[in-house]
Amino acid sequence: MSSESQNTQTRINDPKADWDSATPEQRREIIVDVAISILNEKDISHVTIRRVASQIGVGAMTLYTYVDGQQGLRTAILDRGFEIMDSHCDCDEHPKMNNHESWVEGCTNYVEFAVHYPNLYTLMFTHPLDQHELANIQSHFERWRHDVHEYYSELGIKEEDMQPYVERTTRDCWVAMHGLASLIISQRLQLNEQEIRQQIETLIERLYIEPGQINE
Amino acid sequence: MSSESQNTQTRINDPKADWDSATPEQRREIIVDVAISILNEKDISHVTIRRVASQIGVGAMTLYTYVDGQQGLRTAILDRGFEIMDSHCDCDEHPKMNNHESWVEGCTNYVEFAVHYPNLYTLMFTHPLDQHELANIQSHFERWRHDVHEYYSELGIKEEDMQPYVERTTRDCWVAMHGLASLIISQRLQLNEQEIRQQIETLIERLYIEPGQINE
Repeated sequence: MSSESQNTQTRINDPKADWDSATPEQRREIIVDVAISILNEKDISHVTIRRVASQIGVGAMTLYTYVDGQQGLRTAILDRGFEIMDSHCDCDEHPKMNNHESWVEGCTNYVEFAVHYPNLYTLMFTHPLDQHELANIQSHFERWRHDVHEYYSELGIKEEDMQPYVERTTRDCWVAMHGLASLIISQRLQLNEQEIRQQIETLIERLYIEPGQINE
Repeated sequence: MSSESQNTQTRINDPKADWDSATPEQRREIIVDVAISILNEKDISHVTIRRVASQIGVGAMTLYTYVDGQQGLRTAILDRGFEIMDSHCDCDEHPKMNNHESWVEGCTNYVEFAVHYPNLYTLMFTHPLDQHELANIQSHFERWRHDVHEYYSELGIKEEDMQPYVERTTRDCWVAMHGLASLIISQRLQLNEQEIRQQIETLIERLYIEPGQINE
């Protein structure tokens, strides 16, 4: 994650210098880096092909070689958003944590991601999307569900008992964490870092289902 | 509520006829009715003084006599939004329900309000607001907290034990219900009416705090 961020930073500081020597794949990355840096400042309606091209220092038409127009740019931003979020929420570094703690950790990372990238988060989880885009992000949600499935598997939940654990914990915790993230981003709920942590702990304590809690 | 809706309907069908014979206070109401009917179709950026005036059939300048410009119009829409929501969520008609059921009922009404008025809901709970607007809606949240306080009072919670009941239940349930409403509106979560009801019950069962559940 940190080396990725550094690369992104370098590319944004002088995108034109990188652009000239970049491969087509790298140019696609530069386009998304610049788009996300614009999205950090303004909402998605301002992230246009024209503006991205102008910040890189190339003509708008040039970008159409690398992304499929405005729609393709949005899709690329969404895909990158889930990539950043996944690396942000990955808890593999803390294998010693118990179940409840590791859920609190993952959920804290999710809310932190939202607070760090409010406009990107809003695009991913709130902004109206067309059917094609919805289908695309559905695959990211599926991967997420798959991770939860694997998690409960490691905790010894048998395949025949699995469904309610995966369905309920995934959905209940996501609904609550999205509500929290959304109300914090929109300033409807004004909490400091410690209060956010406390709020996450309270919610997870009640919503996360420990192995054994569902009648098998 | 139903007579109010009927009046609104009449006014929207032929706002100009009503406008001509209306008092200043009624004209203010007509402006907000029309603004909300536009908001039902399009997002808030399309709800301009010019468009509202044109739908009523008067000049834009005329509206400035009744609302304080674009900003005043937004404030009036927000105030009306909370009014509609309050009348939507009022559960006084079901005094026989037990605690848990009445929370499920109130929360179901909240989510239904969001589903019926998605753009209005988004303006109230998600859209970026300036400090003045945030302070204004804060007073609506206070009234809400006050209702929860009264509710627990009626259930026999003593004043000295009140705070954690009010704080935790209000916030936890609101966070979860906002998350649910927001994900449904944005189609990230696609649930039918029965599944929504089921989801609300699951969340409230875990998040609502019954009298006696907090150590006193």
